[in-house]
Amino acid sequence: MTMLSSGFELSVDVLRQRQNVKWGKYGADVLPAWVAEMDFAVAHPIQRTMERMVADHDYGYPNRGGNHGDGTLVEAFSNRMKSRFGWEVDPSLILPLSDLVQGTFSTILALSDPGDGVILQLPAYPPFHEAINSTGRRLLAHRLHPTEDGWRHEPGSLAKLVDATTKIILLCNPQNPTGRVFEQAELEEIGRVAIERDLVILSDEIHADLIYGGAKHIPIATLSPEIAARTITITSATKGFNIPGLRCGVLYFGSAELKARFHARFPARVLGSPGITGIDTTVAAWNHGQDWLEAVLEQLDANRHRMVNFINAELPAIRTSLPEATYLGWLDCSRLGLSGTAHDFFLEHAKIGFSAGEAFDPNGHQFVRFNFATSGRILDQILGRMADAVRSNARG
Amino acid sequence: MTMLSSGFELSVDVLRQRQNVKWGKYGADVLPAWVAEMDFAVAHPIQRTMERMVADHDYGYPNRGGNHGDGTLVEAFSNRMKSRFGWEVDPSLILPLSDLVQGTFSTILALSDPGDGVILQLPAYPPFHEAINSTGRRLLAHRLHPTEDGWRHEPGSLAKLVDATTKIILLCNPQNPTGRVFEQAELEEIGRVAIERDLVILSDEIHADLIYGGAKHIPIATLSPEIAARTITITSATKGFNIPGLRCGVLYFGSAELKARFHARFPARVLGSPGITGIDTTVAAWNHGQDWLEAVLEQLDANRHRMVNFINAELPAIRTSLPEATYLGWLDCSRLGLSGTAHDFFLEHAKIGFSAGEAFDPNGHQFVRFNFATSGRILDQILGRMADAVRSNARG
Repeated sequence: MTMLSSGFELSVDVLRQRQNVKWGKYGADVLPAWVAEMDFAVAHPIQRTMERMVADHDYGYPNRGGNHGDGTLVEAFSNRMKSRFGWEVDPSLILPLSDLVQGTFSTILALSDPGDGVILQLPAYPPFHEAINSTGRRLLAHRLHPTEDGWRHEPGSLAKLVDATTKIILLCNPQNPTGRVFEQAELEEIGRVAIERDLVILSDEIHADLIYGGAKHIPIATLSPEIAARTITITSATKGFNIPGLRCGVLYFGSAELKARFHARFPARVLGSPGITGIDTTVAAWNHGQDWLEAVLEQLDANRHRMVNFINAELPAIRTSLPEATYLGWLDCSRLGLSGTAHDFFLEHAKIGFSAGEAFDPNGHQFVRFNFATSGRILDQILGRMADAVRSNARG
Repeated sequence: MTMLSSGFELSVDVLRQRQNVKWGKYGADVLPAWVAEMDFAVAHPIQRTMERMVADHDYGYPNRGGNHGDGTLVEAFSNRMKSRFGWEVDPSLILPLSDLVQGTFSTILALSDPGDGVILQLPAYPPFHEAINSTGRRLLAHRLHPTEDGWRHEPGSLAKLVDATTKIILLCNPQNPTGRVFEQAELEEIGRVAIERDLVILSDEIHADLIYGGAKHIPIATLSPEIAARTITITSATKGFNIPGLRCGVLYFGSAELKARFHARFPARVLGSPGITGIDTTVAAWNHGQDWLEAVLEQLDANRHRMVNFINAELPAIRTSLPEATYLGWLDCSRLGLSGTAHDFFLEHAKIGFSAGEAFDPNGHQFVRFNFATSGRILDQILGRMADAVRSNARG
């Protein structure tokens, strides 16, 4: 495998050998910038963990330091929440899962009934729409609006949205696809409304490891015991450490009462359990992956500035803002005057595979989500192709 | 890693390096013969699959030949059922899962209500007891009795067991722990009762790959369309190919109606999905693992004869029968006149870790389950230790 200078960047040739959807969905003439995984080699501790398992043919029922795999995961999650966020979690309230979409579906099913309202920030990760719509809940859209300070909710808008059968606020923080990291005051408003209207907060914090410079991630469950008691936090190492195919995540219940309500609908063992490759790599990532993560964040930080500066300078008709977290840009292309969707335009004319905005927001056809977690070289190619396509279109 | 002559046997030193519960539960003076995994290296195609993934750092969202991982699993399962059992399955009725305990819990929850009866063969795999008891169903015990032809139900006993609220027959075929492979007539009786009393058959066929000589595995769903329509088959490659930690299994619904009833309780995505290491190794096993399996079965066949012949010759007070399938012996030690449980006796006096019989049958304290999937050398040590302990006890 050929790596580039940084130690984790990979060349296009190597990336095309991977058997992943990111590089496999489109033809060889297209540069992919869609599904949320990074074009980087994983951290050495993760790789060593996989190599050890393979060398020992160790694919049996796991014993990790005297307990089953889940025990090491619970411990690693507890330690990481403490060291990163000063958050003391209760190990008995942690539930390992195989994936976080499962976490969203199961909590919505367990804590609401058909016809109940679930508040969702828009734009939002497509499976969140599906988890609400396919289970017969009502999606109450809480819009984010572009401001000088990035994508924000209108103050006071949340309380107005809550009706008699609203049960859940589905929060995504850091937010996908806008890259917002919500500030304490914004989170406090959410917590206040949840308490006043007796709502459960389902907080997807899967991007919490991918935070830049000035921003600070605050787990909403750390704001107060009253907020914690009604919050289920969903997280994993799969996004920050680039191992989504290995499948491993964690639900954390802010109170025993919430966990009991959940298990009344989904008894223990019915939701399955992560495999040992998911568990071991997650534990390796959380316990020993921080150096790698910091090196990757430097690269991503350079990339986000490169993306935004280039767009502002060369493609001023596209509106975007500097993401405070994630490796995702949310690009408003409505002033380009395209005849079709922004996704289709860039795929056809620039040979770039972005994520289609309409999957995140029913009105998002003129938006794309830009995954910039790639080498500087590939990023420059993508930006160059965008500029050429937009200029040709303007001339045409 | 040091392998012994057969190509897949492993030495005690190598086995103790593994981080699995089998070798880790007891101290270094104990030989483990309990949890159902084999002391063997996995098949080369499985190993190559893992090595490929590790070499490419390919832990992302999978693309396998143009579809997501699940697609290759569905295809491999379909092909294997066809080639092994002449069984034509409908790909749209296959549901990949992360583990088969999950499959048992979820089907019982979806297809019965608290208070309903679930028929379980006794002795039975401990999680089956748990899936019935912990969900508030009533366990209706369908006993297997020792006969000249191995462990069998009394003819006609099944129909007498069914009452007004019985909903499910939980069948384990090949049977764990007795090693029985049910014959066509036995399966037909189960099917007939299921039809007459409108029961669902939940058929765990996870040991179907581990069949010896004269026996033939018949998936109960292949007996007739009427039986198929009320049968859910549960299977995986994890047992036959020794990869339980990687987590991957399949539920197969014999009719769309059954699948719809299941999804009414558990919508798509709420049960999670297997990780890519589970999927890829399962596909490798089913598509390319047959040579390895046949070599392993030769070894296991020699082991089962060795175990039974030794016990009959040297330990005639222990009653057992030749398993027709699985690598598990079910040993009745009640004539040894032990003061405690058979498990505790062998652990203390022979330094052997068997599975405790009482976990399989509330009346099973004088039974142990003997996992003989190990090298001839280790098997001989276990048998020798058993004989020494029993003789010392008889003298004492």
